[in-house]
Amino acid sequence: MIELSLIGIGTGNPRHLTLQAIDTMNAADVIVIPRKGAGKDDLAGLRRAICETHLTGSTRLVEFDLPRRDATGPDYRAGVETWHDAIAATWEQTLRDALPSGGRAGFLVWGDPALYDSTMRIAGRLARRMEIRMEVIPGITAIAALTATHRIPLNRIGAPVLITTGRRLREEGWPAGTGSLVVMLDGDCSFRCLDPRGILIWWAAYAGMPQEIRLAGPLSDTAAQIVAARAEARARHGWIMDIYLLRRESA
Amino acid sequence: MIELSLIGIGTGNPRHLTLQAIDTMNAADVIVIPRKGAGKDDLAGLRRAICETHLTGSTRLVEFDLPRRDATGPDYRAGVETWHDAIAATWEQTLRDALPSGGRAGFLVWGDPALYDSTMRIAGRLARRMEIRMEVIPGITAIAALTATHRIPLNRIGAPVLITTGRRLREEGWPAGTGSLVVMLDGDCSFRCLDPRGILIWWAAYAGMPQEIRLAGPLSDTAAQIVAARAEARARHGWIMDIYLLRRESA
Repeated sequence: MIELSLIGIGTGNPRHLTLQAIDTMNAADVIVIPRKGAGKDDLAGLRRAICETHLTGSTRLVEFDLPRRDATGPDYRAGVETWHDAIAATWEQTLRDALPSGGRAGFLVWGDPALYDSTMRIAGRLARRMEIRMEVIPGITAIAALTATHRIPLNRIGAPVLITTGRRLREEGWPAGTGSLVVMLDGDCSFRCLDPRGILIWWAAYAGMPQEIRLAGPLSDTAAQIVAARAEARARHGWIMDIYLLRRESA
Repeated sequence: MIELSLIGIGTGNPRHLTLQAIDTMNAADVIVIPRKGAGKDDLAGLRRAICETHLTGSTRLVEFDLPRRDATGPDYRAGVETWHDAIAATWEQTLRDALPSGGRAGFLVWGDPALYDSTMRIAGRLARRMEIRMEVIPGITAIAALTATHRIPLNRIGAPVLITTGRRLREEGWPAGTGSLVVMLDGDCSFRCLDPRGILIWWAAYAGMPQEIRLAGPLSDTAAQIVAARAEARARHGWIMDIYLLRRESA
């Protein structure tokens, strides 16, 4: 039996770590660190640094290479399913090698494990391949990091907020009935598809990290600045994570 | 000049505290703790316990009585505005007394300061009364605590999630275009207003705390259990904080 802890670590600021996350890391026999390949090494490096700082006992680090997603297929969801199966197979092999008699394994998950992250779904697939028990340790979300750096509330008083993706915003436009919109997983600056009149944007990349960038203002004035800043930062760092809040002025 | 840190502390599990929150608490000259009066003493007690555990230097604790909201008026928003003005006046007096020559003050905010919490808005009012500089330290949200204890993702793959309030759900029903719905600030079990067919619910009260209760299942079977469990727990503890995720089976 493997006990699997999915541990939210926040958005790249090592001080986002919770005491519960540190407790759970130290209770694990192994921490499993995925290597995502060139350009994403900052992320594996951050996980290693967190372990070096906070592991005080005999917990071991085990690294493995994450399979790559084939993004060329026409069906986004089917492509993701195949990729998650491949990752679950890699996890299984890694855990059987690292813990042949069972034990506790921790995975460090960017942000919070519940929010647009596949780790919990992959653990579900793993549970069909081997006997595991899973727990989830909540982490600081990218949404909380965004609103903290801009020092703004997420919601208007008593009003709703929709969390959505860049793809949805491009395909469906501004959703009816919502004055505030958080957009994640947007590699395409999909805010450019909106009529910018009356919309405010608060954008951040690498929220919480030393290389954090933030821009805010009326979408009409700010969109082009964000597109340029994003391209420049992505070229410089080799990767980017960004997120934004859109709000209708009248809403 | 007062430097005001609004510090997210998570949802009542003292191990939800982040390292950044502890750093910020210890950098403050005073931590200001509101007393909400009878029945909410658990919350002031938790804040005191967090301070006793983590303050290592000369940071002082200052307590003050929070004004009460007049919930009898017909206009919810106007009632909130008046109440927030009264709180800002109390903050001003407390800070002028505690830091007559200026300095750093920390407020410990339940969950995350951006999510259905009034602290940031009250700080905005305070900024019109005295010179302050504000920073926000993100915290574990009630949403992350809910999904962690149920070990479920917040969103379906690539799909949106609406965060809303009990009042909205009662007044407007299930919002169009959304398969997943997080409901906060619901003292009335507003899920009872929905046709339960095809809806799943994951509910938690005191998520992350020792007295945590969670229930999940088809809304048709689970609604009555939640109503009973909530009433019993509220009577026993004198207060309750709860939250739930609703999802359409077909969505």
